[in-house]
Amino acid sequence: MSAPGVAFEVLARDGAARRGRLTTAHGTVNTPAFMAVGTAGSVKGLTPEEIAATGTEIVLGNTYHLMLRPGPERIARLGGLHRFMSWPNPILTDSGGYQVMSLADLRQITEDGVTFKSHLDGSRYALTPERAVEIQALLGADIAMVLDECTPHPVDEGCAAESMRRSLRWAERSLAAFEARPGHGLFGIVQGAMIPELRRESAAGLVEMGFDGYALGGLAVGEGRETRLQMIEETVPALPAERPRYLMGVGKPADLVEAVARGIDMFDCVLPTRSGRTGQAFTRRGTLNMSNARHREDPRAVDPDCGCATCRNHGRAYLHHLFRAGEMLGPVLLTRHNLYYYQALMAALRGAIQAGRLGAFIAAFEAQQAEGDLEPI
Amino acid sequence: MSAPGVAFEVLARDGAARRGRLTTAHGTVNTPAFMAVGTAGSVKGLTPEEIAATGTEIVLGNTYHLMLRPGPERIARLGGLHRFMSWPNPILTDSGGYQVMSLADLRQITEDGVTFKSHLDGSRYALTPERAVEIQALLGADIAMVLDECTPHPVDEGCAAESMRRSLRWAERSLAAFEARPGHGLFGIVQGAMIPELRRESAAGLVEMGFDGYALGGLAVGEGRETRLQMIEETVPALPAERPRYLMGVGKPADLVEAVARGIDMFDCVLPTRSGRTGQAFTRRGTLNMSNARHREDPRAVDPDCGCATCRNHGRAYLHHLFRAGEMLGPVLLTRHNLYYYQALMAALRGAIQAGRLGAFIAAFEAQQAEGDLEPI
Repeated sequence: MSAPGVAFEVLARDGAARRGRLTTAHGTVNTPAFMAVGTAGSVKGLTPEEIAATGTEIVLGNTYHLMLRPGPERIARLGGLHRFMSWPNPILTDSGGYQVMSLADLRQITEDGVTFKSHLDGSRYALTPERAVEIQALLGADIAMVLDECTPHPVDEGCAAESMRRSLRWAERSLAAFEARPGHGLFGIVQGAMIPELRRESAAGLVEMGFDGYALGGLAVGEGRETRLQMIEETVPALPAERPRYLMGVGKPADLVEAVARGIDMFDCVLPTRSGRTGQAFTRRGTLNMSNARHREDPRAVDPDCGCATCRNHGRAYLHHLFRAGEMLGPVLLTRHNLYYYQALMAALRGAIQAGRLGAFIAAFEAQQAEGDLEPI
Repeated sequence: MSAPGVAFEVLARDGAARRGRLTTAHGTVNTPAFMAVGTAGSVKGLTPEEIAATGTEIVLGNTYHLMLRPGPERIARLGGLHRFMSWPNPILTDSGGYQVMSLADLRQITEDGVTFKSHLDGSRYALTPERAVEIQALLGADIAMVLDECTPHPVDEGCAAESMRRSLRWAERSLAAFEARPGHGLFGIVQGAMIPELRRESAAGLVEMGFDGYALGGLAVGEGRETRLQMIEETVPALPAERPRYLMGVGKPADLVEAVARGIDMFDCVLPTRSGRTGQAFTRRGTLNMSNARHREDPRAVDPDCGCATCRNHGRAYLHHLFRAGEMLGPVLLTRHNLYYYQALMAALRGAIQAGRLGAFIAAFEAQQAEGDLEPI
């Protein structure tokens, strides 16, 4: 591979952790970064201005959902996903593989790729490494992901090895199909289930091909914290220091902190947005369920120390009422808060790395999370 | 009644139409005014900042919904409805009568008031004129409405007369229970079904009691345009020129224009907000259904002449996608647009009255609405 499509600069280090800067065709992303999930062309309930106001610098779009509806060719005719959803900042798209694999009996995998039936109307689709790259180019993604196979968990070693090697062959085809343009990059995805040797083989194969960045796939599938951290620790040293590392689908605030400390630069997860829609709030002192009756006359902000527009303007009693009454403003306000909380955490991690104080930061973070919501009204 | 609780000043006239200014404890409302409906303590999907950005100066809260959940005493303990929903500007609350009457077999009316079962959990409630005033004081409404009986349509003259006279007696009890405070007002409601003599008798009775403003109730119940306009024309001359007139529950943009021309100063209606949630857009050239397939690749704004944040940032194709995909951002964006459209129409009406050009404005408005969406892409 020639000069990288997306530039990445490591600005500071603290142990294995890095504070960096990723530069794409649509601007800069400070890392460690959390990507807000905008599945079907929208971060559910938030306007682009509200997304940006949470501190979000990059949004993730899902190839699977967008290829079914409204379709990548249509989005391309409308000027690409950035224009379509009026998000002028960086976008990373996944390859669709993860969603397709989870369709179970609706899909069939061959060496060529995967065929599946739409969960919307049952119509047939095919996704190959080449088509996944093409779709992401039609969407105009700043960062595209290779099509990979995500093995179920648990899986036996033979299947895991076979699947990982096919993912490597797919990665090579993806790279061959990818048209390099400045500011646009393609990331490889390390697979290999929970078997360190397979993870290292996968990483070595991808690094030899040369990608703009490297993702850790196939985690956050129920493997548990210890195993996940072990896989991160086994994989990160096998990846080039000068390229970004992306842990897919993770996670809770504590998971992000632990992964950052082990050298991860990028994350995505539905947790802050999905939880925001069901009434779960993330705070410095752990989580709160806004539907709980104990909030019904509590005038305090969800997180009194939070600077988001939800916490500045609204109390727990109001959020409790909105969720109890099924008012859509509840999900809007809490999604906004949760994303802001995640982004504030990432900013604090970046600051701690820059200052060489990550260890102290993590100790304080864990102590505060364990404290819980200790001030009943 | 002594000095009015809410001040009203007529700044300009054009025929029967007035351009005025209503001053309440929470600020000023320019009239003719459209009140956004915030049924259960939220204008569905919009943050307070977004409500204000549509040009909305006053929000309507529903006593029925708020008395059931979260309860007026609770809202009072939390500092009142303004603080509860973080809306610092004027609020008018209805008396709950209209919703209770529509509960059909769940309610019972006596001279004392009405008892009913909650549609939420079946528990028993009583609403009397005195309790309706008390609830609205607990909510902290800038403008409260008397409890009245809204007769079904059609109704025979005997029932209509009996009901209207009971509403008059209830109005008198409401007024006696109302505690006058500067910047807080109580409005009477003219009833009398579609019978001009009864409407005039109702108006005369209320005017003799002396209210801060007068509403026309019992319309928008399926009586049809001609009858509604006739009732407005019969009633308005019976109301004092120096007090605001409020046509309850109306209506479509053309209905507002016609009522303003006949001397109405205030309106409320769920149409812009409810339609916004189901995909119907109001524009200068009539309505559009965003779910319609003809919008699927149309990059134009819902209304290219509109200055709202939705029309400045998003195209029809995107809104079409959001409604098709069931994304909650669709209702948010379209509610915002529809309210902005309604408020821009009210502002244009105010400007036309001020300039003495209301007739020309109405002719142009009607011609443009009739044009339709004439530029298929």
